Amino acid sequence: MDLKVMNGLLTPKSVAIIGASSTPGKIGHTVVKNLIESKYAGKIYPVNPKADDILGIKCYPTVTDIPGEVDAAIMTLPAKFVLESVKECGEKGVKGAIIITSGFSEVGEKALEEEIVKTAHSYGMRVLGPNIVGVLSNSDQFNGSFAPFLPLKGSGSLVSQSGALLIGIDASTYMRGVGFDKLISIGNMSDVSFADTIEWLDQDEKTKCISLYIEGFKQGRKVIEVSQKARKPIIGLKSGISAHGAAAAASHTGSLAGAAKIYDAAFKQAGIIWADDLNNLFDRTLALSLQPPMKGDNLLIITNGGGVGVLATDSAEKFGIPLKFAPDDVQTELKKHMPEFGSAKNPVDLTGMAGTEWYGDSVKFAIQHPWVDGLVVLYCETAMTDPLEIAKGIHNAVKESGVTDKPVTVSYVGGEKSEKAMKWLVENGIPAYSAPDLAINAIAALREYALNKENNQDDHLDFQGVDKQKALAVIEKARQDGRDALTEIEAKQVFEAYQLPVTHSRVAKSEDEAVKLAAEIGYPVVMKIVSPQILHKSDAGGVKVNIKDEAGVRTTYNTILQNAKAYKADANIHGILVQEMAPLGTEVILGSVNDATFGPTVMFGLGGIFVEVLKDVTFRVAPFSKKQALEMMAEIKGAPILRGVRGELPRDMDALADAICRYAHMVLDLADEVSESDANPVLVYENGKGLKVVDARIILKKK
Amino acid sequence: MDLKVMNGLLTPKSVAIIGASSTPGKIGHTVVKNLIESKYAGKIYPVNPKADDILGIKCYPTVTDIPGEVDAAIMTLPAKFVLESVKECGEKGVKGAIIITSGFSEVGEKALEEEIVKTAHSYGMRVLGPNIVGVLSNSDQFNGSFAPFLPLKGSGSLVSQSGALLIGIDASTYMRGVGFDKLISIGNMSDVSFADTIEWLDQDEKTKCISLYIEGFKQGRKVIEVSQKARKPIIGLKSGISAHGAAAAASHTGSLAGAAKIYDAAFKQAGIIWADDLNNLFDRTLALSLQPPMKGDNLLIITNGGGVGVLATDSAEKFGIPLKFAPDDVQTELKKHMPEFGSAKNPVDLTGMAGTEWYGDSVKFAIQHPWVDGLVVLYCETAMTDPLEIAKGIHNAVKESGVTDKPVTVSYVGGEKSEKAMKWLVENGIPAYSAPDLAINAIAALREYALNKENNQDDHLDFQGVDKQKALAVIEKARQDGRDALTEIEAKQVFEAYQLPVTHSRVAKSEDEAVKLAAEIGYPVVMKIVSPQILHKSDAGGVKVNIKDEAGVRTTYNTILQNAKAYKADANIHGILVQEMAPLGTEVILGSVNDATFGPTVMFGLGGIFVEVLKDVTFRVAPFSKKQALEMMAEIKGAPILRGVRGELPRDMDALADAICRYAHMVLDLADEVSESDANPVLVYENGKGLKVVDARIILKKK
Repeated sequence: MDLKVMNGLLTPKSVAIIGASSTPGKIGHTVVKNLIESKYAGKIYPVNPKADDILGIKCYPTVTDIPGEVDAAIMTLPAKFVLESVKECGEKGVKGAIIITSGFSEVGEKALEEEIVKTAHSYGMRVLGPNIVGVLSNSDQFNGSFAPFLPLKGSGSLVSQSGALLIGIDASTYMRGVGFDKLISIGNMSDVSFADTIEWLDQDEKTKCISLYIEGFKQGRKVIEVSQKARKPIIGLKSGISAHGAAAAASHTGSLAGAAKIYDAAFKQAGIIWADDLNNLFDRTLALSLQPPMKGDNLLIITNGGGVGVLATDSAEKFGIPLKFAPDDVQTELKKHMPEFGSAKNPVDLTGMAGTEWYGDSVKFAIQHPWVDGLVVLYCETAMTDPLEIAKGIHNAVKESGVTDKPVTVSYVGGEKSEKAMKWLVENGIPAYSAPDLAINAIAALREYALNKENNQDDHLDFQGVDKQKALAVIEKARQDGRDALTEIEAKQVFEAYQLPVTHSRVAKSEDEAVKLAAEIGYPVVMKIVSPQILHKSDAGGVKVNIKDEAGVRTTYNTILQNAKAYKADANIHGILVQEMAPLGTEVILGSVNDATFGPTVMFGLGGIFVEVLKDVTFRVAPFSKKQALEMMAEIKGAPILRGVRGELPRDMDALADAICRYAHMVLDLADEVSESDANPVLVYENGKGLKVVDARIILKKK
Repeated sequence: MDLKVMNGLLTPKSVAIIGASSTPGKIGHTVVKNLIESKYAGKIYPVNPKADDILGIKCYPTVTDIPGEVDAAIMTLPAKFVLESVKECGEKGVKGAIIITSGFSEVGEKALEEEIVKTAHSYGMRVLGPNIVGVLSNSDQFNGSFAPFLPLKGSGSLVSQSGALLIGIDASTYMRGVGFDKLISIGNMSDVSFADTIEWLDQDEKTKCISLYIEGFKQGRKVIEVSQKARKPIIGLKSGISAHGAAAAASHTGSLAGAAKIYDAAFKQAGIIWADDLNNLFDRTLALSLQPPMKGDNLLIITNGGGVGVLATDSAEKFGIPLKFAPDDVQTELKKHMPEFGSAKNPVDLTGMAGTEWYGDSVKFAIQHPWVDGLVVLYCETAMTDPLEIAKGIHNAVKESGVTDKPVTVSYVGGEKSEKAMKWLVENGIPAYSAPDLAINAIAALREYALNKENNQDDHLDFQGVDKQKALAVIEKARQDGRDALTEIEAKQVFEAYQLPVTHSRVAKSEDEAVKLAAEIGYPVVMKIVSPQILHKSDAGGVKVNIKDEAGVRTTYNTILQNAKAYKADANIHGILVQEMAPLGTEVILGSVNDATFGPTVMFGLGGIFVEVLKDVTFRVAPFSKKQALEMMAEIKGAPILRGVRGELPRDMDALADAICRYAHMVLDLADEVSESDANPVLVYENGKGLKVVDARIILKKK
């Protein structure tokens, strides 16, 4: 990212409005008016060959006629003139084009859009849009958009893929009392994308939290990369995650994926906090922009009402930070700041008698105590207490405590006085919400932020012994045969090249050879058809297990051949696989797809009903840390199976995590060749005994 | 319910304030002040032997000194004087006591509280409280409480178990723009309970929706009964559903229950709509109090912005009403009210150009179309359109359509103008929300309401052939033996008495008898230990299956005996059960507990990992309709298993639903005797082939 250029685009010191208009109501007029009304301190240069001045500001016939430097050009002229205008801007040395004009890729004019970006890049220019509302920045008093006014001031910044929503959000900041420093509309993302804006906002001093409204990323992997590096919290609201909106997927792994699951994975890996809906985006932005991450699980709730306390307790469990009772010394101290019938457990119920002093003392003590990782303070309006005084008490207590690395959120249930108190709290850096569960949800966002950061710490995976050339040679051979599916034995060779343990197996071309191989491998054996045309071997009657002796091998050899021919008469049969029969273990599945947005992406789940009935699978974009692999194993519903149920010993979690990471490495390493793959089943054994890939499948990219 | 008495208590024409005080700040003063300030039109009689008048109103030394009739007595005097005061009220002919005073069962004074209720009842009086805030009613201009003012006017009424929360909610109605007609604080529920208030509010003309904040019901079954009969929507926010709050449960079924699952079941059966949190309670109350139920699944969304449209689509799936595309004729007509680039699919995107006319025409056509069951209208604020005009357009369209039996909800994303437009909509009967998902959630509540009503239609279950006396005889015999657990064979006899099919089995007292019985039953057989002291037979090595011949029976007989003795040397062994070996089928589990709140409650789930790992079980309070049983079968995660997976035929759903209802009938019929029971496993066969209870367990109530 060229910082100078991006600064010129997003916080310009001078702007040209190309397509500026004298006619009120036209966008080219509105933008000039908005720049004036927002008290923009930079130079404003309207460009319009037919006007001398617009709203009292001197107008220029072309951008090249402008005497001074121009950082950004806001374009509102018709689509067909944009390319020419970009060229002129390039000649003038403009750093960036904010193209408000629509009528490009969103209506099929993809080639024109690409040409514009190519041209801009040839001059070292960047392009925001087209098809956008513009850019708004409170700290620059810059309303370079056709949205009617700057948003309420705030310390988060929002990037929105929907222009209409950005305008609605802009107005609603005042009603919600949650502001933004910058609103950036990115529309078609022909050039500047989410990744660019994240990278830029991360270095923008005025932005404390980066908020995203996403319809779809264009460069998913790059978003993950820059987000992982970001030093600020990022929160995303992803729309279009319902089945009604999602495109039908063809492959098995693909059909289990869907936008929600893949984005959920990508967010986790990127360390992006998930927002459930529009209100949640605001609520969590407020917390993330004002408070530090919550670095442990010990949440303490202080309340003046049992009702809101219980509601908060329910929410804490729902949002993943279940309450624990505070230690004895905490309880003993807190007991001093409440009447006899109060409770010092957790929630700490100061009772309806609680005034500013009890609140203040409890908050100050609690936040300083090493056991406490985060604090939620609840207040239910009473006739006896002044909401604003309580707010000031809470704020002073936090301030006096000197503690700045533990988060505090607040909820008030009450009327106008409570509303004012909450506004005061927000203005003084403490997020406050109108219901207890919202304060809990907010602190949960701060906990998620800390956890995401932890889980994405690089743990330097070491993939010793990987032999990519060997894998490529297997693939090359299949390509030479004109195939785009590997046989099981080939697929296993590829898996083996990445040190994934597979069941030992060899191909017999005759009944006698099968007998010979079985003896070498050792009974019992499994026998399977080997044919590029028969991928679903079981359906074809092409798999037989637990064959115990020579007679069995001979009978089975012929049965499988007959079944295969009955299933597909013209199938090219390479022979019959004779395979080591793996001991019974816990069935898991690995799968991969090449996701359109994120590229090679790995699926993990338990086998059998877990995948078939419950769709109990989880995803990560390759590559990922071992911590992420362990998280995948922990987040499926069937996780207790891996930890051992009904007296079984725990499965070999370490070997499994290692295998998942290795598999991710494999699908990424072979991304140019492999379209999708799976290992199904993989049998996982008890701790220390590893796992075995029993069947494997690889589909090549068509070339 | 004596309507006259309840009316006297909750909408009194005259009130005495017993414990009225001249001292500002005291509750006895506040209540008198509040009655005056709320412009209460009835008679106000302060009672205080030491004052002549309070706030200008004549005071009486005792309630019996009051000249006129007294409907309700609001008591604010110290706890120790309440009983005496209730007696006096009884003598005076007062209909009800609103006991604000605290210091009763909530601090352990249960006996005094009971005495008060007994005394009140002896005079035909009812008691609200004690330990409450009071009663507030907008339509009666009656603030009989120490909450500072009447809430914003609305057409729902709220019953709250938490006083502090009620005060907070009262104030917050003005900030939220969602009002109530009545606020009723029920505190300790010594007499008037949720069931009473539901019954009374159902006949109260001013109440359109009954909203509940529940910490715990006292008479769970009665709440279900009166709710089922209610003609108005009821919505409940249940707090204390987290594990941190829930009491540890001892039994197996109990440990799977927890407050959330049992209340969820009870709500479904009662037809009570669930509120997730405080905001949700307000949002859904608004919809339920203003709009009719949504009687089908066809939801149409009309929007002026793609972004909010997609967010609403995601929400619709999340809240259980996934969108379908509108039929062709609907699309063709709607296409007329939008530009070329709009979309007439679902959501119907009128685009940012949509003004009052397009909105109006689309809404009017859509709501009249037979395909449409409900309508959500979204608006994202633009500079070109007037939010209030759009609101009026929507309202007029609905009005002109003449359609009153389909719900409409609205969402605006925008600023002050949008806020005003939403307020206007609410005042004119259309619920409006500040985010698209809230409008969807609101209409989902109206859909849930319709579905609950359907599922609770009585389907007249016929339990022919039930022989309760036979079951009681089995139980009686066990009691005579001094046991409170039945043996498997006894439990199965009880199940059989309720026509639940069990595997054929008999007890052998010797090896030879076992051989004889096995021959009669037919090989293969199962053999199990029979001992009241060994309930977990498998753990004791007391179960062997698939015994194929006489030699097997002989060996097994002795093995089981040895195992049992090794497991529990002093166990009283009744013999060895020789049992028909049921053919393989799908394992399900039935269980029952005597829930402290709801009484006999039935659990259903799939066996194996579904129950052990996934806790995939569901509950209903006995008895329930066959529709509820079918819903239980549909709502577990493993439901696809019952419908048939991997090419298996569907299970016998009808037989299973019948068995679940029969089992519910059994646990209810034997509620005086049985503490808990289960049938585990029950094997369910393919359609038409029924099921078999393979093992059964019954624990008796201690007597």
